[in-house]
Amino acid sequence: MHKEKLIIFDTTLRDGEQSPGASMTQEEKIRVARQLEKMRVDVIEAGFAAASPGDFEAIRAIAGTVKESTICSLARASESDIAQAGEAIRSAARKRIHTFIATSPIHMEKKLSMTPDAVVERAVDAIGWARRHADDIEFSAEDAGRSDLDFLCRVFEAVIKAGATTINVPDTVGYNLPDQFAETIRQLLSRIPNADRAIWSVHCHNDLGLAVANSLAAVLAGARQVECTVNGLGERAGNAALEEIVMAVRTRADVFPVETVIDTAQIVPASKLVSQITGYPVQPNKAIVGANAFAHEAGIHQDGVLKHRETYEIMRAEDVGWTKNKLVLGKHSGRTAFKSRLAGLGIELPSEEALNAAFARFKDLADKKHEIFDEDLHALVSDETVTPAREHFKLNYARVTSETGETPLARVTLAVGGQERQAEASGSGPVDAVFGAVERIAQSNAELLLYSVNAITTGTDAQGEVTVRLAKAGRIVNGQGADTDIVIASAKAYLNALNKLYSSQGRVNPQGDI
Amino acid sequence: MHKEKLIIFDTTLRDGEQSPGASMTQEEKIRVARQLEKMRVDVIEAGFAAASPGDFEAIRAIAGTVKESTICSLARASESDIAQAGEAIRSAARKRIHTFIATSPIHMEKKLSMTPDAVVERAVDAIGWARRHADDIEFSAEDAGRSDLDFLCRVFEAVIKAGATTINVPDTVGYNLPDQFAETIRQLLSRIPNADRAIWSVHCHNDLGLAVANSLAAVLAGARQVECTVNGLGERAGNAALEEIVMAVRTRADVFPVETVIDTAQIVPASKLVSQITGYPVQPNKAIVGANAFAHEAGIHQDGVLKHRETYEIMRAEDVGWTKNKLVLGKHSGRTAFKSRLAGLGIELPSEEALNAAFARFKDLADKKHEIFDEDLHALVSDETVTPAREHFKLNYARVTSETGETPLARVTLAVGGQERQAEASGSGPVDAVFGAVERIAQSNAELLLYSVNAITTGTDAQGEVTVRLAKAGRIVNGQGADTDIVIASAKAYLNALNKLYSSQGRVNPQGDI
Repeated sequence: MHKEKLIIFDTTLRDGEQSPGASMTQEEKIRVARQLEKMRVDVIEAGFAAASPGDFEAIRAIAGTVKESTICSLARASESDIAQAGEAIRSAARKRIHTFIATSPIHMEKKLSMTPDAVVERAVDAIGWARRHADDIEFSAEDAGRSDLDFLCRVFEAVIKAGATTINVPDTVGYNLPDQFAETIRQLLSRIPNADRAIWSVHCHNDLGLAVANSLAAVLAGARQVECTVNGLGERAGNAALEEIVMAVRTRADVFPVETVIDTAQIVPASKLVSQITGYPVQPNKAIVGANAFAHEAGIHQDGVLKHRETYEIMRAEDVGWTKNKLVLGKHSGRTAFKSRLAGLGIELPSEEALNAAFARFKDLADKKHEIFDEDLHALVSDETVTPAREHFKLNYARVTSETGETPLARVTLAVGGQERQAEASGSGPVDAVFGAVERIAQSNAELLLYSVNAITTGTDAQGEVTVRLAKAGRIVNGQGADTDIVIASAKAYLNALNKLYSSQGRVNPQGDI
Repeated sequence: MHKEKLIIFDTTLRDGEQSPGASMTQEEKIRVARQLEKMRVDVIEAGFAAASPGDFEAIRAIAGTVKESTICSLARASESDIAQAGEAIRSAARKRIHTFIATSPIHMEKKLSMTPDAVVERAVDAIGWARRHADDIEFSAEDAGRSDLDFLCRVFEAVIKAGATTINVPDTVGYNLPDQFAETIRQLLSRIPNADRAIWSVHCHNDLGLAVANSLAAVLAGARQVECTVNGLGERAGNAALEEIVMAVRTRADVFPVETVIDTAQIVPASKLVSQITGYPVQPNKAIVGANAFAHEAGIHQDGVLKHRETYEIMRAEDVGWTKNKLVLGKHSGRTAFKSRLAGLGIELPSEEALNAAFARFKDLADKKHEIFDEDLHALVSDETVTPAREHFKLNYARVTSETGETPLARVTLAVGGQERQAEASGSGPVDAVFGAVERIAQSNAELLLYSVNAITTGTDAQGEVTVRLAKAGRIVNGQGADTDIVIASAKAYLNALNKLYSSQGRVNPQGDI
């Protein structure tokens, strides 16, 4: 069967990052973008340039770094949004502007307060503004899933005529069923006279658990781009999961008339990286990237049942990048080996000082832990991302004892803007006591929304990676900390979150609700 | 539109429990079964009676407890399996036997070593054996998704003639796509002359992320029973998620010609209970039951964007049981209030001693934590489930200090079969040190597969619930421990897992690979 290309458009860095607390630093976004490039994602939506100066700078940095994938910025259908998007992606080797406006009656009336005619006119204007900055222009009809089909045809025909090259049909609220969504795509393709002059795209949300099924149904109906995220990250129940889309198309090559160019062996590394950076865990029974997804492959043979491999296997674990942890470095590894392994992981530290600090932490870790895996290095570097300049609070010392029947008392010494400060506090557990002591000093009064621990690798000497989510005055941040000592890791994570609250990178503009 | 009934068949206790390490004690299974009954699940597959004496006893106990839901046991198509299933469900108010045999060429040849003719004959015999024990008989064709359609028609016609009342079509390896699976159901319904004498059921696995979509497509094609699990628990990528099936049918009542009788407000409590008991977390971006699924509802308003509620809402959080944690008990609550709250949660402790021990732990917890929520009570009771008789290892004392720059040294005192034993060990962190000291005494040499921590409720004085998964000689067990001190909770979880390894409840027979 002749295969057409299915374009994989990854929006982990834009829609995925809109998950509460999943916001990433610029350095983290670059690491994710590099992994997406390595996985051979066609289009990387790197952010929403007008949302904040931080978003703008991150897109610009990614545009200057990634060479193989097209770099895209989201922009509302306004001249200034589009100008900012164009500026942010200017240096990219391949670039795209993605502009959107709502087309459902409820959104046009309640959110935009615009008439349908005005919406069409604005959409056409937006394509003109975008063409000043790029040839590759995507247009999205926000809440297309609840829009009137005749009106959608009218808007899409007009924007294709104006020069839009990709037309995206989002199911913003995850309300569609597969057959129905496929029928919408089929109708659009047959009723719009110039439909063949654009590539058709879908963007599905997972509120009813159908994002992947809706996307695949649309592909069978003629869509040739799917917008998706690693691990299905995204607001509410998230977006279509990249790994499920890619592996369904590949595993069912007998049915799908399309193929992707994704290097599937990069799927699990991408999943782990995104999970580690955002602090969003992947449940064990998640398809493709869950720890149990290939459990019958991973040496877990239940009760001696002998099974022929092909009897229960439709995919091979190694095809999606499940391999045993590789021992990459030990305590005798030198600075050059360390640096070269980081480079192999796509990690470039911003300065020699940062490299030296990371190497010192590596040596420290290697003293405590026999085997250092790639996951440990990612954690170690994440730990480094709050560079000294932004590190308002720094942990100098902590001590706390857990003892049955006793109330833990924590002693903590912090450097606060360079000044050493001490405090003690008791708590219901050692972590609670340490957080209490830190709060005596920091006085942030932030609300603790989430505390979670992941073992980074297996074994009893594994590092714990702690995620702490704090909320204050409407801002939500995630802090991460890794250490072989779970209590110290918790203290680091809390301070990392406080440092993020202290830095002023909050978004000031609305987000893209596609 | 006239609505037919869609039967919800929950297999959390059978297929869900086959997830590595998700095995539950009898008391835990009863608690889950009661919650399923409260949720008004039509059929509860309580286990696989012939798999082990523990499975048999758990099914019998559930059959004697649950009154509203039909209780079902799985059985291979053998006279002895079916006799055991019949005996296990004997006392149930409503009972079903679910028997199965493989029908795909690869399974018949490689697993069963039987000819197609012999498979048909055995299937018909199995229905006859089952009719000795129940009128309600379900037949499954294992790996139907890869079976020859003509052969499936032959087998199903024969078993319906023999008295099977429900015919289940599983997609054992999760290979199907929705349209294709729906077409299979449509073909079966139109080609089998006596198809109208049975209820048609589907059982979909989620390897490609399509279990829910395949199930819903089958319902649109005529299936009237869906087999599913809470949280989509199950081997590999799991089964169709009950909550997604139920809410899709309800939310899209405009499309589906069926309705369920599920009390949807019990969905989130069921999800939390199953997650807590099995130690399988639910990822935040999981549809319906993930912590973020209704994040725009939960007071997280991003950056001041004012949104009309209906603009982004297709379901209401309260309809699936998302409510704020309710303060149920405090430190001044008495024994009667405690007991009555447990009863309200469907928890009955086996003896007065167990109740006294649980109440003592409750008072202890109330001293450390101001507000006691339902989740705390579930954790506290889980902690009690290893009754003294089975508690070979018991924690008497533990002490360990976390200090920056120092190696933690743990001191632990255990009661081992009544004898007090002490040990010390150092480790890379306090948890590692405590596990080391416990191992010095227990000498289990078990392999640590997983260590995970969940905060049971929010707030800094929340209890941590630790899950420890140990493997030894092919057996995998999960241990749980809850405490406001994460290190003590870890020690309890490790000992709970060791106690499970020491009890002899391992499965001895093959599992049901439907």
